[in-house]
Amino acid sequence: MQPWPNSIHIPLPDWVAHAVDATRCYPTDEDRVALAVHLASENVRHATGGPFGAAVFETGTGRLVGIGVNLVTTHRNCALHAEMVAFMVAQARVGSHTLHVPDGPSHDLATSCAPCAMCLGGVLWSGVRRVLSAATRDDAIALGFDEGPVFPESIRYLEDRDIRFVGGLHRADARAVMERYVAQGGAVYNG
Amino acid sequence: MQPWPNSIHIPLPDWVAHAVDATRCYPTDEDRVALAVHLASENVRHATGGPFGAAVFETGTGRLVGIGVNLVTTHRNCALHAEMVAFMVAQARVGSHTLHVPDGPSHDLATSCAPCAMCLGGVLWSGVRRVLSAATRDDAIALGFDEGPVFPESIRYLEDRDIRFVGGLHRADARAVMERYVAQGGAVYNG
Repeated sequence: MQPWPNSIHIPLPDWVAHAVDATRCYPTDEDRVALAVHLASENVRHATGGPFGAAVFETGTGRLVGIGVNLVTTHRNCALHAEMVAFMVAQARVGSHTLHVPDGPSHDLATSCAPCAMCLGGVLWSGVRRVLSAATRDDAIALGFDEGPVFPESIRYLEDRDIRFVGGLHRADARAVMERYVAQGGAVYNG
Repeated sequence: MQPWPNSIHIPLPDWVAHAVDATRCYPTDEDRVALAVHLASENVRHATGGPFGAAVFETGTGRLVGIGVNLVTTHRNCALHAEMVAFMVAQARVGSHTLHVPDGPSHDLATSCAPCAMCLGGVLWSGVRRVLSAATRDDAIALGFDEGPVFPESIRYLEDRDIRFVGGLHRADARAVMERYVAQGGAVYNG
């Protein structure tokens, strides 16, 4: 067993800085989900993790606040789904444990696949107000990915707390990234 | 807004190294949950986060593999519930994104409070086989903590994947830690 760590260090892949223009805005929901799917695709191409990408935006301006890719196997850390990484990056930039800051802008999460149970819980704590997604839970399950205990009432629980869901944007593109990953023999790890 | 980060760095509080004897074993379920509650109590005393602690053990030997405390507000990172930190530490030590390693030992999570929706999803991905907890979901909700969308069928979903749950160990002690935190004016952040 490794020695007891004093800290957990999560470097982002080097390619991220080149793949994302952090200065541009993403005005439409489609633009925002397209970036999440692009990150998923780049993560597969660079072999830095699973076929999932995510990003956080200011709802009104489309300003890019955070990005994430799945880093679970490369970092040996089950928490590092794309959405969780995007929340960590966005909260580091905003300087708050919640993106729901009084008098601050509202935030969207865009993700290449409907959030698993862990990430859906994370959505609630993150402070985002909208969740935009591409591939569906059923798409992921059909390829062998477990999505965990997410039920229709799970979504309603978040909707009752003023979080809105928009699914199926660029769905075929996101599914194609997952299919490419599986066809290449990428690890489909589950519980 | 802060500059774009190249990495996320999560230092553990300095007091952890002194509060935990990493060399001793914890033979019983009660011993394991007692450590999680002790970590919760120390986290409140040192004002390093919310009133929650967790630890990961080898099931058979009781060897301590990972510890975690809630670091959400101090690290400005919504993912850092005690259970998630404990998984990260344990997986760093074991060198695997899952604690369910073929021919390796089985692992338990002990936690001072029944896992929220995010952490319950994390339990599934973590590879632990048993979840031992102290305070209940209702205890947390009674003090104003949202636990997110966790339903009886959420627990059954994990039980169907060979994860076992034991609740209510040292419940009064864990509840007392949460009550002390709230009485001291500690932040009860929610979605």
